[in-house]
Amino acid sequence: MSQLPAPSALTQFVTATAGRNMTKAAYTAVVIGILMVVLITVDPAYDAAHHWIRATLWACLAFFAFEWLVRIRYTVMAGRGVSYLFSLHGLIDTASVIAVPIARLLGADARTAWLLAVIWIVKVFPGVPGLRQLRRVLVLESGPLLSVLVLFLMVLFLGSVAEYFLEHDVQPQTFGNVPSALWWAVVTLTTTGYGDVVPITPMGRMVAGIVMICGLGVFGLFTGILATGFAAETRRDNFLKTWETVSKVPFFATLGPSAIADVTHMLRTIDLPARAMIIRKGQQGDCMYFIAAGAVEVDLPGKKVPLGEGAFFGEMALLGNNLRGADVTTTRVSKLLVLDLVDFRLLMARHPDLAETIDNEAKRRAQENK
Amino acid sequence: MSQLPAPSALTQFVTATAGRNMTKAAYTAVVIGILMVVLITVDPAYDAAHHWIRATLWACLAFFAFEWLVRIRYTVMAGRGVSYLFSLHGLIDTASVIAVPIARLLGADARTAWLLAVIWIVKVFPGVPGLRQLRRVLVLESGPLLSVLVLFLMVLFLGSVAEYFLEHDVQPQTFGNVPSALWWAVVTLTTTGYGDVVPITPMGRMVAGIVMICGLGVFGLFTGILATGFAAETRRDNFLKTWETVSKVPFFATLGPSAIADVTHMLRTIDLPARAMIIRKGQQGDCMYFIAAGAVEVDLPGKKVPLGEGAFFGEMALLGNNLRGADVTTTRVSKLLVLDLVDFRLLMARHPDLAETIDNEAKRRAQENK
Amino acid sequence: MSQLPAPSALTQFVTATAGRNMTKAAYTAVVIGILMVVLITVDPAYDAAHHWIRATLWACLAFFAFEWLVRIRYTVMAGRGVSYLFSLHGLIDTASVIAVPIARLLGADARTAWLLAVIWIVKVFPGVPGLRQLRRVLVLESGPLLSVLVLFLMVLFLGSVAEYFLEHDVQPQTFGNVPSALWWAVVTLTTTGYGDVVPITPMGRMVAGIVMICGLGVFGLFTGILATGFAAETRRDNFLKTWETVSKVPFFATLGPSAIADVTHMLRTIDLPARAMIIRKGQQGDCMYFIAAGAVEVDLPGKKVPLGEGAFFGEMALLGNNLRGADVTTTRVSKLLVLDLVDFRLLMARHPDLAETIDNEAKRRAQENK
Amino acid sequence: MSQLPAPSALTQFVTATAGRNMTKAAYTAVVIGILMVVLITVDPAYDAAHHWIRATLWACLAFFAFEWLVRIRYTVMAGRGVSYLFSLHGLIDTASVIAVPIARLLGADARTAWLLAVIWIVKVFPGVPGLRQLRRVLVLESGPLLSVLVLFLMVLFLGSVAEYFLEHDVQPQTFGNVPSALWWAVVTLTTTGYGDVVPITPMGRMVAGIVMICGLGVFGLFTGILATGFAAETRRDNFLKTWETVSKVPFFATLGPSAIADVTHMLRTIDLPARAMIIRKGQQGDCMYFIAAGAVEVDLPGKKVPLGEGAFFGEMALLGNNLRGADVTTTRVSKLLVLDLVDFRLLMARHPDLAETIDNEAKRRAQENK
Repeated sequence: MSQLPAPSALTQFVTATAGRNMTKAAYTAVVIGILMVVLITVDPAYDAAHHWIRATLWACLAFFAFEWLVRIRYTVMAGRGVSYLFSLHGLIDTASVIAVPIARLLGADARTAWLLAVIWIVKVFPGVPGLRQLRRVLVLESGPLLSVLVLFLMVLFLGSVAEYFLEHDVQPQTFGNVPSALWWAVVTLTTTGYGDVVPITPMGRMVAGIVMICGLGVFGLFTGILATGFAAETRRDNFLKTWETVSKVPFFATLGPSAIADVTHMLRTIDLPARAMIIRKGQQGDCMYFIAAGAVEVDLPGKKVPLGEGAFFGEMALLGNNLRGADVTTTRVSKLLVLDLVDFRLLMARHPDLAETIDNEAKRRAQENK
Repeated sequence: MSQLPAPSALTQFVTATAGRNMTKAAYTAVVIGILMVVLITVDPAYDAAHHWIRATLWACLAFFAFEWLVRIRYTVMAGRGVSYLFSLHGLIDTASVIAVPIARLLGADARTAWLLAVIWIVKVFPGVPGLRQLRRVLVLESGPLLSVLVLFLMVLFLGSVAEYFLEHDVQPQTFGNVPSALWWAVVTLTTTGYGDVVPITPMGRMVAGIVMICGLGVFGLFTGILATGFAAETRRDNFLKTWETVSKVPFFATLGPSAIADVTHMLRTIDLPARAMIIRKGQQGDCMYFIAAGAVEVDLPGKKVPLGEGAFFGEMALLGNNLRGADVTTTRVSKLLVLDLVDFRLLMARHPDLAETIDNEAKRRAQENK
Repeated sequence: MSQLPAPSALTQFVTATAGRNMTKAAYTAVVIGILMVVLITVDPAYDAAHHWIRATLWACLAFFAFEWLVRIRYTVMAGRGVSYLFSLHGLIDTASVIAVPIARLLGADARTAWLLAVIWIVKVFPGVPGLRQLRRVLVLESGPLLSVLVLFLMVLFLGSVAEYFLEHDVQPQTFGNVPSALWWAVVTLTTTGYGDVVPITPMGRMVAGIVMICGLGVFGLFTGILATGFAAETRRDNFLKTWETVSKVPFFATLGPSAIADVTHMLRTIDLPARAMIIRKGQQGDCMYFIAAGAVEVDLPGKKVPLGEGAFFGEMALLGNNLRGADVTTTRVSKLLVLDLVDFRLLMARHPDLAETIDNEAKRRAQENK
Repeated sequence: MSQLPAPSALTQFVTATAGRNMTKAAYTAVVIGILMVVLITVDPAYDAAHHWIRATLWACLAFFAFEWLVRIRYTVMAGRGVSYLFSLHGLIDTASVIAVPIARLLGADARTAWLLAVIWIVKVFPGVPGLRQLRRVLVLESGPLLSVLVLFLMVLFLGSVAEYFLEHDVQPQTFGNVPSALWWAVVTLTTTGYGDVVPITPMGRMVAGIVMICGLGVFGLFTGILATGFAAETRRDNFLKTWETVSKVPFFATLGPSAIADVTHMLRTIDLPARAMIIRKGQQGDCMYFIAAGAVEVDLPGKKVPLGEGAFFGEMALLGNNLRGADVTTTRVSKLLVLDLVDFRLLMARHPDLAETIDNEAKRRAQENK
């Protein structure tokens, strides 16, 4: 693996992917690798095809090792030294590459060592779309979440010592010591309820009932905190994504900064590849679009009308009979701003000048289409 | 089934129902059909009445096939070709009709083949009232929901490989391979907790405890995302339903567009059949009504006062002693706008001219009733 | 029971309680009655004391029958005929009285018949404080809740027929027919997971995993809808309770109707009995109070200052060092408006004239106390 | 324990910690103590090291007793008498000290008596950060929460009597009396589902299904209420923490009181120790900071720029290319106000004068850094 066969060509390929996100190839390798880890533990599959399974696993590992080396080389050449190795991404990649070989060196047998390849799944982690959002929620709400965790632990310990005291004479097998009672308490407080350890004395059941109701409370608080944090984060995220784009659309340029802030709250950004159908003729229309970047094509009978950056479309269904009058397709990779029907109406009500601009354009288009 | 007995008469009947929603007859057929599918698997019931059960199932299938053919004919005649066959609705209908016959053709025995008739329940799907709302939430929140799903899968795989490693020597029956451990992990992460597969080693239980607490987190995030999305969607939905109606009520016509947007947020639309009692004398009044379409009748002692489109009623209980002074009933199918007590007060406070109009009308009526 | 011993005296006592809510005596009777119903099923308790248990149950029944008769008499005398019998409250009371005797007449043995006395618990229902709020949420959100229920049923039937198909050959005992599979599906979809019926084939477990994840989704939607509805209802409820009171406090009289609506959103109403301590010296102060009705007494060193309707207190801790300077106690049944610290600051910022009034009064008091 | 060896020196140490929160030493003692309580019940551990375990437990108890005595002495010397003993904190401390000795005096054997030491975990309670917030939610929402609890109890009793009636003939072991059925109902309503008591008759399973779906509802309402209350409380808490600080920052001094209330809603307070890195060069910037108290140091190439109270920093990444240009570290314990990117933009839009001040400062700094 150390002598890269054709560094210049291959490197170029991988370099393009050396950003934050993984290539599709790497995702495929992760999926195949995890599948093989699962298969290696199934005796019939292992007996029938262990050569194939292990070969595939080695291939995946080789791919990850290669990717890892290229990324190191890339960051070093970009003058950022070995910073990659100490980033979250780099640490995950390093662990993915060295975990299995090290386990082998330490004397684990092959079948057990390959189990460690399950950590390849963590490579998907940095690419999860809403992760940043999730992390912000956890950080901002860490105070209340920690409080709930402490309450959880308090109920856990008090409940399990009480159950140990009440049940250990009757059920020495299952409630014979506090660690066993703790196991019962975790299973109960999370409302999982396996039923392998269950109180049978009347007092024990009463305590268990209280622990269960506390479980509901912990659950409710947990959900409430996360829901609260998530609602705030979603609003924030959308605002940030949209703000940059709004100020670049000439249509909104006449608005003062305060009105732009107002408008930003109403819009949503979407990114589309080329040749994506945005509007289908005959469908119900519940939003209009502004082109922030890219271009689209309106498919009118007999002619195709191109629309470029700064143009808007889809307003006619909102002003008229609610049905889309023509297909609209992107011709390039495009970034659009979406204005929902509700917000369209609020915007028209609050900014009569924008309403007039849109009305006039809609009338001009209706004229033209006749 | 292929020779429709009296196409002209029957077709007319079904054509009226060929819109988006099913007829009551079809709903009844679905309920009966599903009941028969359940019964067919119960040995005593099958032995006692299998002729009846199968005859009923055939009758349901015949009904659906007939409905399907009429709908195809209708769309073809309406000049929309076979577009129906490729819509969601059409695909469900087609599958409902052909699933059982195809299973029979492929050699399944009758009792097994009829199990497929359970997909008839999906025919109810397009008629579910809040479905559009639900789908919008899922689409708009797909990013965060996907992130949570990825986290779910990550915990699932890491947890189950860890448990396999820790438990498979002690419990080769239940933790003998990773697929079995995955089963344990799904059951645990969703807090279902059957208890058929349970870790027994101390380390295994510790890992299981962490998986359970992660389960709480996944649950909380899931609920939080859906709750956030749902709150936004409910507001949007109500605004859209109400907007159209508000601008048609003369009472609000004097308001500028910005104030109308404001008022729309306060109102709710309800649709009522003829002869429905809206207000019952002596009840507590917590809202007033505007008639957007239809007509109502106020049942005063000695006379019945009719009110038509644009009129309002129910304001006297809000201004006075909180008790309704007369019964009010619709005389035709009507669409009303409901203004809640809270919003009534906010509206009166913000729009003194509207407050005066309502006050004067209430005084005039009080005078008249004396 | 039919000859009321001293109707005039007793009737007066019960008449006072013939409103919407039950007396404490009735609540006590319900609690005792339910306890007896539980005890009657416990063999040792029944053997030891069945005379006592049944006597107590008869006493409770007699009490409820008496209360029922007095209420009927009361409504008839109030000129409202037998309307009570057909109200929710009356139906519950009637059922509570006649259920057990009817079961006895129909030939049930005494021990079984008394089980029906468990419906006495429903008598508590109309008195539950947040019930009206809860019912409004369920009515207003009935559309989305129904949709979720339909989705629930859909997953339930599709899942259970699939499991029946996949498992009934392997586990004819537990998955022998669709009703058994439906039982499994309900237990799984609600994430209860008893573990008495569990799929064991790989395909069956895969389907079960999907059903479980759908269970999470159903749960999340359910919670999301209820949370959304509840948040709106709580705001509405508080506004209504407070509005009436605010407009009667002279302090707010100078505000226009729009500002009053604004202020109402900030205040909360509380009702206190006489001799209740509102503020304790030395505690941290996080709100101030306005007296809407009743009277309080400030316990200053050496003297007691009475404050009547329209006065306010507790503002000094908010303006000064955050610690309460004196005990404050109600001298009569009182209704207070509570202004939270946060809203106090917002109010002061938005209404400088109110700020001045409060400031001046605080200074005057500080002077006086020196 | 009664003769404090070196009161003056030790007392000083503990007095510093005699405020509301525990010292780190006390937290450590709690953790060690709880661990020992767990170990004492594990037979092998107890047999091997019971001298060590009990010695450690005595040491912990001695520590708590010492802390307790010092606190009593402190409050007495501070002229507050024995008020500490009757505060929540004092009651917990007293119970922690006397529980085990009293159990021993009452004749419990040593191993059982030490189980009571589990209440030491409650000592952590008053120090939980979000506890006050949690308590306020529970108090303010006590009405709705109580309603849900009553509904819970109603379903519990009705469900368990119904199940007893339906199942006790078939399963006299598990459903032999109503208390057993109540146990089943609690386990089911909380969706725990142990599976030790399970209905097997068709009717019993139908009732159980309804109880489970009610369980979902109770859960949903519970979560909804807590989520609603928590969202309000979080906003309130943040506002209070920030308000004090904002008015002290000269930058905001020019704003009127109404605008300050507005700004307060946008800011968040954080407290940092000395030498904490706030901004790392090269990271993405998504907020700016105002120094309310303390001091920071900006690490520019070749020089270190100190910033004191009232200064702001981090605005350049928000105005420019989004990347931080320099490391920033606190030099003292500091209190900062954080303005998020979203709110930064809203603030700039609404208050053009503040925007200009920040813009000018950013330009001056950019000039200087060149």
